[in-house]
Amino acid sequence: MLKRLKEEVYKANITLVKCGVVTLTWGNVSGISRLEGKIVIKPSGVDYDELTSADMVVVDLKGNVVEGKYRPSSDTPTHVLLYSVFLTIGGIAHTHSTSATMFAQACREIPCFGTTHADLFKGPVPVTRFLTEDEVNSDYEINTGKIIAERFVSLEAASTPGVLVAGHAPFTWGRDASESVKNAIALENIAKMARGTLQLNPGVSELPQYILEKHFNRKHGTNSYYGQKK
Amino acid sequence: MLKRLKEEVYKANITLVKCGVVTLTWGNVSGISRLEGKIVIKPSGVDYDELTSADMVVVDLKGNVVEGKYRPSSDTPTHVLLYSVFLTIGGIAHTHSTSATMFAQACREIPCFGTTHADLFKGPVPVTRFLTEDEVNSDYEINTGKIIAERFVSLEAASTPGVLVAGHAPFTWGRDASESVKNAIALENIAKMARGTLQLNPGVSELPQYILEKHFNRKHGTNSYYGQKK
Amino acid sequence: MLKRLKEEVYKANITLVKCGVVTLTWGNVSGISRLEGKIVIKPSGVDYDELTSADMVVVDLKGNVVEGKYRPSSDTPTHVLLYSVFLTIGGIAHTHSTSATMFAQACREIPCFGTTHADLFKGPVPVTRFLTEDEVNSDYEINTGKIIAERFVSLEAASTPGVLVAGHAPFTWGRDASESVKNAIALENIAKMARGTLQLNPGVSELPQYILEKHFNRKHGTNSYYGQKK
Amino acid sequence: MLKRLKEEVYKANITLVKCGVVTLTWGNVSGISRLEGKIVIKPSGVDYDELTSADMVVVDLKGNVVEGKYRPSSDTPTHVLLYSVFLTIGGIAHTHSTSATMFAQACREIPCFGTTHADLFKGPVPVTRFLTEDEVNSDYEINTGKIIAERFVSLEAASTPGVLVAGHAPFTWGRDASESVKNAIALENIAKMARGTLQLNPGVSELPQYILEKHFNRKHGTNSYYGQKK
Repeated sequence: MLKRLKEEVYKANITLVKCGVVTLTWGNVSGISRLEGKIVIKPSGVDYDELTSADMVVVDLKGNVVEGKYRPSSDTPTHVLLYSVFLTIGGIAHTHSTSATMFAQACREIPCFGTTHADLFKGPVPVTRFLTEDEVNSDYEINTGKIIAERFVSLEAASTPGVLVAGHAPFTWGRDASESVKNAIALENIAKMARGTLQLNPGVSELPQYILEKHFNRKHGTNSYYGQKK
Repeated sequence: MLKRLKEEVYKANITLVKCGVVTLTWGNVSGISRLEGKIVIKPSGVDYDELTSADMVVVDLKGNVVEGKYRPSSDTPTHVLLYSVFLTIGGIAHTHSTSATMFAQACREIPCFGTTHADLFKGPVPVTRFLTEDEVNSDYEINTGKIIAERFVSLEAASTPGVLVAGHAPFTWGRDASESVKNAIALENIAKMARGTLQLNPGVSELPQYILEKHFNRKHGTNSYYGQKK
Repeated sequence: MLKRLKEEVYKANITLVKCGVVTLTWGNVSGISRLEGKIVIKPSGVDYDELTSADMVVVDLKGNVVEGKYRPSSDTPTHVLLYSVFLTIGGIAHTHSTSATMFAQACREIPCFGTTHADLFKGPVPVTRFLTEDEVNSDYEINTGKIIAERFVSLEAASTPGVLVAGHAPFTWGRDASESVKNAIALENIAKMARGTLQLNPGVSELPQYILEKHFNRKHGTNSYYGQKK
Repeated sequence: MLKRLKEEVYKANITLVKCGVVTLTWGNVSGISRLEGKIVIKPSGVDYDELTSADMVVVDLKGNVVEGKYRPSSDTPTHVLLYSVFLTIGGIAHTHSTSATMFAQACREIPCFGTTHADLFKGPVPVTRFLTEDEVNSDYEINTGKIIAERFVSLEAASTPGVLVAGHAPFTWGRDASESVKNAIALENIAKMARGTLQLNPGVSELPQYILEKHFNRKHGTNSYYGQKK
C-alpha cells in the first residue's frame, strides 16, 4: 500500500539525519495521500540505520494504524491534527534541531533579520503557548497539534511553514515530505543565524518589510523567478 | 572471557567517537556482567583506530585486572564504585563532551528547559561538589565515584542517568553500555541547547513540572508508549 | 562554449558546498572570460548532487542567457554588475554562510582583530546600506550590485575581496572562481573568530595597523613571500 | 634525506587537517632531528590534497633550505627560533584554530577551568605581547619566536606545551610532530570549553591548584599512570 509515498517519506527521514538536524532518533517525517486519506509516518524509536522504506507505518485520518509491523511515531496524533487543519500541506517534519529548539525553549519567536529567513517565512517564526496541565494529561499529542492550530488562527500555513512549540521543538511542513525536510533544515539555519545576530547587535531592527516581501515573493509569489520553471 | 560483553563495550566506545562527543582519547565506556561479577572497560590512552574488541580489559568488582594485555582506563576505580552503589545500571560512559563539560567547569547544574531534557532526566542534571585536597591526594578516582554517590543520596540513578563532576566532566549510565552512550550523546545535546536557551532568555523558566513528568513517563514510566514494545 | 570555464565554475560551486559554507542551494559562484565577454554561472535552485559542469549557464555582459538549458542563478544581475565595476576580478562567490551572515544581519562591519583577517583583507570587511523601497521594487538584483559598488567608492576590490550586504549575506571575489570560493571560506572563518573575540573581550582593540599591513603584504604585496613562486 | 621524519611530519600535517583545526592551508607542522641538526617542515601555501611526504622541506638550524623543491612555510623562522630555545621539544604545530585564535585575538590567556586543561597545561595558556612596529618590519617571523621565548622566561615548555601569539594564533609543541598536533587539537578544545564556561559563569573560579596538579601529574609526572607503559 502506498509504496511510492513510503519511499518518499523514508528518504525524507534519512535526509533529515544526514543534514545534521537529528540527534539519535529525535525526529520524524510524514507524508499524506489526500486522495486515499492515508498518512505514512516513521515508526517510533527505531534506529535510522536499521530503517527501510517498508518499515514506514500507514495510519488513517484518525491516526489508527492501517498497515505496518511497528508502532508509528509517538507524535503521530500531532501530525494527524495538523493535516486536518492545514489542508494544503502534504508533508510534516518534526525535529529537535539544536538552534530552533533553543528558541522554542526560550519561548522566543524568531524575528526576520535577513533574506535567508524571508526566502522561507513571510514574517517571524511563531511560538505556541505552553499546554495546560489538563491538556497534557489527556491527549497530549493531539493537544500539541491544537495549540499549533490555535497559534495559526491569523497565520497561513503556506507563508509560515513552521512553528516552535514552547518548551519543546519545531514542526515544519511543505507541499510534500521532502519540502517539509528542506524547511526543517532551513529553519535550523535561520535560528542559528538569528541567535548570532542578536548577540552581535542586541538592538538590531527586523528586516524592512519591503525587502522581506520581495524575497518571499521572488521565491513563492505568483511571479516567482527563483529556481527552474515547473 | 566475556566475549559478547567485550564486543558490546567495544562498539559502545566506537559509537562515542563517531558521534562526536570524544576528542582524541578523552572518553571511556564500561559494561558489567552482574552474574559473573566482572566489568569490561576500555584500555587507557589507546588510539581508537587501533582498538579491537579483544583489547577491552576485564576487571573484578574491586577493580583488579583479571584479563587484558593493556592497563584499563585510569578512571576504572570511578566506574567500579558507581557499579557498587547504582545496582540497577549495566553500563557507564565518561566523556569530556564540549557543552556538558562547560556546565561542569562552570559548576552549574543543567535546569530542565524542554522536552528533550525531560525525555531523559526527571529533573535537572546535577553537579557534584569539588573534591577536597585529601580526597584528591589519596584514591582520587575512587573518591570521584564517592562524591557522585554522595550527590545521589536523594536522587535515583534510573531517573537521573548522569551527573556533572565539578571542574571535570560528565558521567552517564544506563541498562547497558550502549544505553550509557546514548545518554552521553543526549546529555551533550541537552547541555548545548540549555546554554543557547540561557543566552536567548537569561530569565527563562524551567519546563512546567507536569510537562516534564509527562515526557519522562511516556518514555520510561510503567505505561510508556515511546518506541517499540519489548 | 567555454568548456574549461564551465568546468572551473562547476568545481568552484562544488567546493563551496563541501567546505560547509552552503546550506541547501543557498550559494552560487560565477567566472568571467573577459576576452570573450561571457560569464558562466550556476543555474538557480538546482540540487548540488544533480549538477554537472554542462549545466552551467552562459550569459553575456548584459546578463542575457547565451547558452544553457536552465535559468541562471537569480543573483546573476548582481554578478554582472560587479564584473562591470571591478575590472580586475575573474570570479565571484555568493553564500549565506552562517557567521558572515550574522554580521550582515546585524549590520556590523567586521573589524580586523587578527592576522587571519589581515592575510585577506587590508582593513575591515565593509557592510552596505539597506536598499530603499524603490531600489527593491525595480531591478532588485542589479541594485544589490550598485550598493556594493557605492560602498566601494573609496575601497579597492583587490585589497577588500568581499562585502556584507546589509540584511542579506556576503559576496566575495578573486582572480578566478576558485579564488572567490577560497575567500568565501576564509571570510566565514574570519567572521566566526571575530564574533568569539568580541564575546571574550567586548572592548578589544583592532590589530595594530603595522601588523595588518605586514600580513596583507606578505601574501599580496609586490614582495610577497607566502606560498610558492608563480 | 630524513625520509622517516618527513613521513612523520607529513602525517602530522594531514592529521591537523582531518581533525578540523585547519581551514584552507592555515597551518603547519615541523619536526626536528636534533642528531642531524635538521628541521623538516611543510611547504608554504600548498593544498593539502596535493601534498606528499616527499614535498616536505628540509632546513638547517639557521632556517636555510637544505632540500626540497618548494619554499618552506613562511613561519619557518619562528619554528627555528623555538627549537633553539626549547631544547627538549621535537615537534611544533601552528594553526589558526577557531577558538584558540579567538582568545589570541582577544589578548586573553586561557585560565584553567577543568581537568581537560590540567591534563595538558600546568597552569593558564599564556599570551604573548604584541610585536612592536620595529619587530614587525624586520625579521617578523624570527621576532614572533622571540616574543614567545620572552613570555616563557618563567615558564617551562614541557609543562606549558603551547602559547597564544597576541592578535595572531596558537603555537603548540611536543616531544615529536605527532604530539605537537595532539596538543593543537587539545588546545582548541580547551579554548572552546573555556569560552562556554566563561559565558555560563562569568565569575567562575579557576580549578583548585591541587586538582590541577593531580591531573597534570597523573599524565606527565614521574609516577604518571595514564595511558600504557612505554
